[in-house]
Amino acid sequence: MLLTNHRLLLAARPSGIPSPANFTADAMPARTPGPGEVLLETVYLSIDPAMRSWMSEGTGYQPSVPLGEVMRGGGIARVLESRSEEFAPGDLAQARLGWQTHPTLAGRHLQKLDLTLGTAEDWIGPLGLSAVTAYFGMRDVGAIRRGDRVLVSAAAGGVGQIAVQIARIEGCRVVGIAGGAEKCAFVANELGADAAIDYRAEKNLSSAIARACPEGVDLYFDNVGGPTLDAALARLREDARVVLCGRISQTHATEPYGVRNLNRFAAVHGRMQGFLVFNYRERYDEARAWLAARRREGRLNQRLHVLQGLAQAPIGLGMLFRGENTGKLVVRL
Amino acid sequence: MLLTNHRLLLAARPSGIPSPANFTADAMPARTPGPGEVLLETVYLSIDPAMRSWMSEGTGYQPSVPLGEVMRGGGIARVLESRSEEFAPGDLAQARLGWQTHPTLAGRHLQKLDLTLGTAEDWIGPLGLSAVTAYFGMRDVGAIRRGDRVLVSAAAGGVGQIAVQIARIEGCRVVGIAGGAEKCAFVANELGADAAIDYRAEKNLSSAIARACPEGVDLYFDNVGGPTLDAALARLREDARVVLCGRISQTHATEPYGVRNLNRFAAVHGRMQGFLVFNYRERYDEARAWLAARRREGRLNQRLHVLQGLAQAPIGLGMLFRGENTGKLVVRL
Repeated sequence: MLLTNHRLLLAARPSGIPSPANFTADAMPARTPGPGEVLLETVYLSIDPAMRSWMSEGTGYQPSVPLGEVMRGGGIARVLESRSEEFAPGDLAQARLGWQTHPTLAGRHLQKLDLTLGTAEDWIGPLGLSAVTAYFGMRDVGAIRRGDRVLVSAAAGGVGQIAVQIARIEGCRVVGIAGGAEKCAFVANELGADAAIDYRAEKNLSSAIARACPEGVDLYFDNVGGPTLDAALARLREDARVVLCGRISQTHATEPYGVRNLNRFAAVHGRMQGFLVFNYRERYDEARAWLAARRREGRLNQRLHVLQGLAQAPIGLGMLFRGENTGKLVVRL
Repeated sequence: MLLTNHRLLLAARPSGIPSPANFTADAMPARTPGPGEVLLETVYLSIDPAMRSWMSEGTGYQPSVPLGEVMRGGGIARVLESRSEEFAPGDLAQARLGWQTHPTLAGRHLQKLDLTLGTAEDWIGPLGLSAVTAYFGMRDVGAIRRGDRVLVSAAAGGVGQIAVQIARIEGCRVVGIAGGAEKCAFVANELGADAAIDYRAEKNLSSAIARACPEGVDLYFDNVGGPTLDAALARLREDARVVLCGRISQTHATEPYGVRNLNRFAAVHGRMQGFLVFNYRERYDEARAWLAARRREGRLNQRLHVLQGLAQAPIGLGMLFRGENTGKLVVRL
């Protein structure tokens, strides 16, 4: 096979929201797999907030992507050629593929998709890492209980929409915060939230939360940090739990927002916990089995925002930080 | 008996640190107890940070003290005359006595001191509510584990000094933060902390914590809030716990400090919990049994800072917020 691997390399570290100017494209012959390796054809790439930190130096939980190297990114690929005993041509697998069309990777770095759990679209969507993040955040970190009054920020986003649906499945009242009327309609009508708050339309977010959650909040699942977190803290009920999952509002803040309402934790015997999905990596199978079962029952969906073609990946990253996506952002190759 | 009850009434709500000008003294005949009541002679009054919030309108967890009424405060008293079947003259009891020398209270609002656990001085000190607060904060909220690297702020204060000693008893390395060389010497030499940090002498508290806790902090017991909390958050280790017990640095802040380092919680899978000792009121006996046993073993002490006479109570409150006390502040009548 004479295949060309189209790649996007990190060319310049961004100072604000990433754009195509931060990347350069190149093309080279796909590398023939060595022993234990497989040659892949990328099908989907996932566009996630954490990728911004990988583009900068020393700001994240993982090493930065070196300048001039393929941008790091997870996704789903089809095996074209295999020298690994675990994979055969046609298999679908997920891995840190990088932003390239035809990566060659060690088989041990791939996870074969279990297609009895769901399709490739399910694996990038409601069985993907965003969904798994929501599962551990709501259940393990947030210790969700039937009847909880739940509040979720970035409720239309990749993690948020699964968090909202988990709250419904668990028998909770749930309110979502999102930016704009269209996202709020999606949160209320398609995800089934009891109410949606459009943070862009509200002058006083804390008052809006009080109106939407008149009994207060037992469980706040935070994907944004900053003033939204502060506003939610003011509405915590007795024994409330706050899950620090993401802080997308702070990614490009010129200076970090200082959270003032921590005194609420003593007043209500509340607790707050942060996590990364990798803290639970040994239990991903458990999460996917649960998510797949709820999907089969028709109780769990994930809207994907699909962009077409590798060149859209940098554009998607910008959309994510401007809040222009509705649904989990993926690139289809 | 013709006894005079000397009282201190709240005369004006403070705008900053309370002073004697916020109170007026009066005297009236002690009230003869009715059915179920007892006439008491106050022996000790406890001076605690929470009292400041009781002096203001609508800022605390409990209703404010109305102007013109006796200042609220807990303490220990001796029964002089009883019309309650549960009390006899000479019994010692603790209660919300108020700032008065001879209160008459319903017997059901008193708790008789179990003198097999300790003396009256023990009950205002290492068996008192500050000590009980440290017990639940370190053990239940903080989930202290053998080998934890523990950091305690206001380590020379009423709650802090017990927290430091609990950490030692539980087999932990413990560092205390206090203000001034004398308090730090007390924390290191008498409480047995492995190191003490004088926050008044340090330009960069976070660096000072890094030097004193080179492996980071597993458990931070926070009595002060504000910039000290922020500095400690920057040093949290994997699976760290933060106990929000007090926030004395913020009581008189002109505007609330915004805490910036919450991102640390996601990075280390850390959690933070606030509490009030009243959350654990049904388990006070358990706490006192544990504290009394450690006291009998000679492993637990509490230094009291004793002022003499009711008129000193308002002065003590000012000392507390200026950090002028070394040890738990009490007034002996």
